[in-house]
Amino acid sequence: MTIPTEAPAWTDIDPSLLTIERNPVKSALPEQMLFGANFSDHMLIIKHVAGKGWQAPVIKPYGPLELSPASAVFHYAPSLFEGMKAYKQEGKTPRLFRPDENMARMSRSADRVALPPFNQEAVISLIKTLVKEDEHLIPPPPYSLYIRPTMIGTRPALGVGASDECMLYVIMCPVGPFFPKGFKPVSLLATTDAVRSWPGGTGQYKLALNYAPCFRPQEKAKSLGYDQNLWCLGDQITECGQMNLFVSYEDDEGVTHLITPPLNGLILPGITRASLLALARSHQKGEITLPGLPEKSKFVIEEREFGLSDLRAWSEKDALREAFGAGTAAVVCSVERIGLPTGSESKAVKDIHIPIGPTGLGPIATGLHARVTAIQEGSLEGPPGSNWSWEC
Amino acid sequence: MTIPTEAPAWTDIDPSLLTIERNPVKSALPEQMLFGANFSDHMLIIKHVAGKGWQAPVIKPYGPLELSPASAVFHYAPSLFEGMKAYKQEGKTPRLFRPDENMARMSRSADRVALPPFNQEAVISLIKTLVKEDEHLIPPPPYSLYIRPTMIGTRPALGVGASDECMLYVIMCPVGPFFPKGFKPVSLLATTDAVRSWPGGTGQYKLALNYAPCFRPQEKAKSLGYDQNLWCLGDQITECGQMNLFVSYEDDEGVTHLITPPLNGLILPGITRASLLALARSHQKGEITLPGLPEKSKFVIEEREFGLSDLRAWSEKDALREAFGAGTAAVVCSVERIGLPTGSESKAVKDIHIPIGPTGLGPIATGLHARVTAIQEGSLEGPPGSNWSWEC
Repeated sequence: MTIPTEAPAWTDIDPSLLTIERNPVKSALPEQMLFGANFSDHMLIIKHVAGKGWQAPVIKPYGPLELSPASAVFHYAPSLFEGMKAYKQEGKTPRLFRPDENMARMSRSADRVALPPFNQEAVISLIKTLVKEDEHLIPPPPYSLYIRPTMIGTRPALGVGASDECMLYVIMCPVGPFFPKGFKPVSLLATTDAVRSWPGGTGQYKLALNYAPCFRPQEKAKSLGYDQNLWCLGDQITECGQMNLFVSYEDDEGVTHLITPPLNGLILPGITRASLLALARSHQKGEITLPGLPEKSKFVIEEREFGLSDLRAWSEKDALREAFGAGTAAVVCSVERIGLPTGSESKAVKDIHIPIGPTGLGPIATGLHARVTAIQEGSLEGPPGSNWSWEC
Repeated sequence: MTIPTEAPAWTDIDPSLLTIERNPVKSALPEQMLFGANFSDHMLIIKHVAGKGWQAPVIKPYGPLELSPASAVFHYAPSLFEGMKAYKQEGKTPRLFRPDENMARMSRSADRVALPPFNQEAVISLIKTLVKEDEHLIPPPPYSLYIRPTMIGTRPALGVGASDECMLYVIMCPVGPFFPKGFKPVSLLATTDAVRSWPGGTGQYKLALNYAPCFRPQEKAKSLGYDQNLWCLGDQITECGQMNLFVSYEDDEGVTHLITPPLNGLILPGITRASLLALARSHQKGEITLPGLPEKSKFVIEEREFGLSDLRAWSEKDALREAFGAGTAAVVCSVERIGLPTGSESKAVKDIHIPIGPTGLGPIATGLHARVTAIQEGSLEGPPGSNWSWEC
């Protein structure tokens, strides 16, 4: 007789099933810690099998993946990633910065390209284990260990549709501070012919597919003497390079406005962006005091849409105080110059200049940067009630 | 003494350097020839190395690729493909359909995501060799061997920018006719909340990254009882499913219009699309006669923008004659029903119905389909002066 069996249930990620295959080599820190070039000794891999769910997690030596050439990721780009950093003070436990936010965003990204859901806490727990496995490769602050959780669709068939097989993996690399020789302001070229994000598109998700279309426009900006693109949708400003943009200007009443585009579907919900906003608001409410930020009665923080025409108008009135990008890699990065279209037929560009101050980073960005990095490194707390820095 | 050497020149693809590692297994045709599920015995791989160029091409047994987990394709989606078919009449040489057009488009796609250029004729020559290697896996018409040239960025570093390492590979699978049991009309849901293509975007390139964002909207259409999406940008119609859309309507003077959106940057320049247009125009000029197409004085062929509001108006006037998608997989595929938004707050959808005739495919689509498949299979010629069907 056959004992009737039920279809096996879909299984979520279970950290208790982790197996670790140790790398016999224990690397030393590389001499040059270029961003994303030297990888740590181990990686985490979790496979999702169609109809079954997530399989046992594996930590093993960093090395190549073996994939069918028909894998969905190559043909239809169901693929996404996160950027995180682990910080370690000498003799202390390594720390992650708001990993719950990364996992929540990763989960939204996965859903947008029809990849399976996953237990976010389980992945944080596994990342902590991975980080501790390679703790010897976390350089002391302001250096850190960059963590790249990645998810790719691996269904080996060409029919266009959701990839029910996939792989979640995490690789890591020791990285230097983004600006090893002090803050280096960047220049931006307002880019309206190539559009990064549009209504009904995917700009608010951290998908691989948002990046490749930006390579050529980035090369074009460089060839015209600008470091990065200021991404626009018509006149409307969305992001800069791979960062969220903040602008500060002074209005006619002498009030300083710190503004950034709202999460209107066009904007990547950056975790640095959210943290800077929360810190600035906490300062504005008088809960914390951040040196360099305006006195609270003269300070307004706004998430609101603004455009190239606004930048031009503020520049003409000499009202621009600061502009900076915010992201995981650089934390903050000041903008000193923006090439704006003159609107003429000639595609001519006219630069506006933005104060950067003697250090290369304006007072608001400096105050926010100091606090957020102190929280990341574990020496200060976030706004009251927050839980931003997690021990591994 | 050191003899001064010059930097080695970048090398293009050279078919004379091809090496073939034969698969010891010679497969039989699979029983079920589902699209893109069973792959042929061999694949073609050509690697591009940074600073050096394209390496010697290799044909080897179909099998997994080994790639760094940091490869650009996983993180930033520099990735693209083509769809082609090889046809073989018994005892005859296999044939490709307009492979020069596929390679020209592939080259444009590569440039859009900053992948390197390549000698298009060389790749055609190598594909011919690959097809002949697996000639035993080309089923007789209306079956064919589907060919999937693919190009992926493989630079193993996380810095955001052009992937100067890449891989061009070609995999193949025997496929049945798209409609094994006669033409099966499809239904479309007009989709305006998710936008496939937008000005300044990448809709006109055959990039992997255009596809994953469509998975969820496709599932939504299915859940509402529609086979595919009718992609729109606001009111403007762009494509349907993964096909170009053709619509035929009769105007007040009794003239039949065959229309399809123009190549305005939002539309994939389909090779089936271009071929159907050329055949219809050749008929309209009286060069060839296609049964089912209107008499030339009563027939207008137009590439022009049109919208959901036009469809609604033509439907209300009972002027719609046919609608069909055009693409490599199905060649043509008639549309019998389109769900249009009513414009009310309720997100309600109202169906319009389009004639499909007794065979499931209207007269214009039938006439075009018969001719284009005859050309693909090598039994008829294209329009005068054309060179569409290439012997391997």
